[in-house]
Amino acid sequence: MKHYIGIDIGGMSVKAGIVNEEGKIICKDICQTFPDKHYSVMVKDMYELCVKILSDAGLRFEDISGVGIGCPGTIYAEKGIITFANNLNFHDTPLVDEFKKYWKGDAVYIENDANCAALGEYLFGSGKGSRNCIFITLGTGVGSGFILDGKIFAGKMGAGAEAGHMVIRIDGEKCTCGRRGCWEAYASATALIRDTQKAMAKNPDSLMHKIAAQYGKVNGRVAFDAAKQNDKAAKQVVKRYIKYIGCGVVNLINIFRPDKVLIGGGISNEGDYFIKLIQRYVNRYHYGGKINPRVKVVRASLLNDAGIIGAASLAMNK
Amino acid sequence: MKHYIGIDIGGMSVKAGIVNEEGKIICKDICQTFPDKHYSVMVKDMYELCVKILSDAGLRFEDISGVGIGCPGTIYAEKGIITFANNLNFHDTPLVDEFKKYWKGDAVYIENDANCAALGEYLFGSGKGSRNCIFITLGTGVGSGFILDGKIFAGKMGAGAEAGHMVIRIDGEKCTCGRRGCWEAYASATALIRDTQKAMAKNPDSLMHKIAAQYGKVNGRVAFDAAKQNDKAAKQVVKRYIKYIGCGVVNLINIFRPDKVLIGGGISNEGDYFIKLIQRYVNRYHYGGKINPRVKVVRASLLNDAGIIGAASLAMNK
Repeated sequence: MKHYIGIDIGGMSVKAGIVNEEGKIICKDICQTFPDKHYSVMVKDMYELCVKILSDAGLRFEDISGVGIGCPGTIYAEKGIITFANNLNFHDTPLVDEFKKYWKGDAVYIENDANCAALGEYLFGSGKGSRNCIFITLGTGVGSGFILDGKIFAGKMGAGAEAGHMVIRIDGEKCTCGRRGCWEAYASATALIRDTQKAMAKNPDSLMHKIAAQYGKVNGRVAFDAAKQNDKAAKQVVKRYIKYIGCGVVNLINIFRPDKVLIGGGISNEGDYFIKLIQRYVNRYHYGGKINPRVKVVRASLLNDAGIIGAASLAMNK
Repeated sequence: MKHYIGIDIGGMSVKAGIVNEEGKIICKDICQTFPDKHYSVMVKDMYELCVKILSDAGLRFEDISGVGIGCPGTIYAEKGIITFANNLNFHDTPLVDEFKKYWKGDAVYIENDANCAALGEYLFGSGKGSRNCIFITLGTGVGSGFILDGKIFAGKMGAGAEAGHMVIRIDGEKCTCGRRGCWEAYASATALIRDTQKAMAKNPDSLMHKIAAQYGKVNGRVAFDAAKQNDKAAKQVVKRYIKYIGCGVVNLINIFRPDKVLIGGGISNEGDYFIKLIQRYVNRYHYGGKINPRVKVVRASLLNDAGIIGAASLAMNK
């Protein structure tokens, strides 16, 4: 059986794992990142992490058929360059070439982390069996990855697949990107928390206050928890949030008409209850409701391993 | 040189033309359609139109390498079926099979008309030289066609590429599709006329009244004409309209990051002045403005021939 290494670069740490051709992680580890230091430092740490997991797994360099790297930001995959990654101090960074100074193999690839996760889900997770699928991650922001005809579609120089920055309310809430009304400004966990806080301020008797106190803060779960206990104000927050998510999902369905839409990210931990609400919204509002094929909304299934498996799958898919 | 036939089905007429492999129409003709009659009547008329143009051009059946058909609505291209076309009384109509009862050749293809036009522009018009391009047609509605990696992308059973039904203002204007706030409800000629009429009602002294009287009605040109003569109310209508178009175009750029966005349809007759306004909006608002590659907005160039050339190009691209 062939083995691959998947490397998942984050703001605080780098994770790496050895993944077999069936998409199973057989060994993984993590190391800290130092975004303030020169990128060559991180690359050296990445390489040493690879050496360590190889040793832990009892495998040699020759046993690895390829390495895939997932990284937030705009990635120019064909050139192996990180054009820009906001939290990581990367700017036109030739990460693949730098990594190859240590790793003496040709099969090293890099892609945006949401694109990697989309590919991982398509090959080994909830996206299996579909031809076109869309992966949405609902976290601090709203990320997206598109698998079209079995391949990542990322647009010119990898600068596409930014569905979080599709405006759903022209002149609406300010987005971190500078535009107003982006999907991300309504459907991210950040937006949910903002809306929860607003509803709490208006409803001093809401259960949300008690629940937030238990968590020690207002997080993305407060409104969901309270809604399940039939709190009226919380139910309104959840209803609005589902509508915002649904609006963007239906937009993407009308544009791509994929086989499946996969929902990942922290908010997807709300599980079946949450997914079913989105599915109901989609069934009701997708274009050509009675004629066009319905699209399944499913929870992404690789969860915390999506980063490593997704990155490794990048090397498998070449 | 190879020759193809392109057939362009519309609500009032069917056009057909012989197109050479360089995308030039060497002969074309038109016949009336009768949407109320059974589809077999239209198909027979279509065939007879083909026979006529062959005869006019002095060509034989054997000289034609393939036939492409463009039709509004949802087209299941792989099966040659028109799933649904609103104004044409088609519903799961096996148009290709019916046409082959007369036309004894295998190479007969069908696609949505906006998808055909997109392919035609990509091969022979303003889209030449790009890898991914997006075609938008601004008319009674807002249509779209996506060429990705040189091929039409239409999604499952051809039910995608409906960018006109991407919501840009949640809870906004009612759209013909049943949803609220679709791009089409803001960026179509219909929407522009609605907005022009509203502005005229509010501004009895506006030049728009005089210009509309000259046209005999309020059409999509009234506000543009008056704006060019510095009419304040008209300038506001145009500014708003550009913003609506620009909003959807930027959304699609952030999703696809194509090489080019091509603008066609009646409104594109406003020409360079109009295209430049959209380009300026796009440059200002596209995601990652200083980092990501800029996307060119250009006017679609095949104009009235886009239907025939686009349909013919369908057969060439197989």
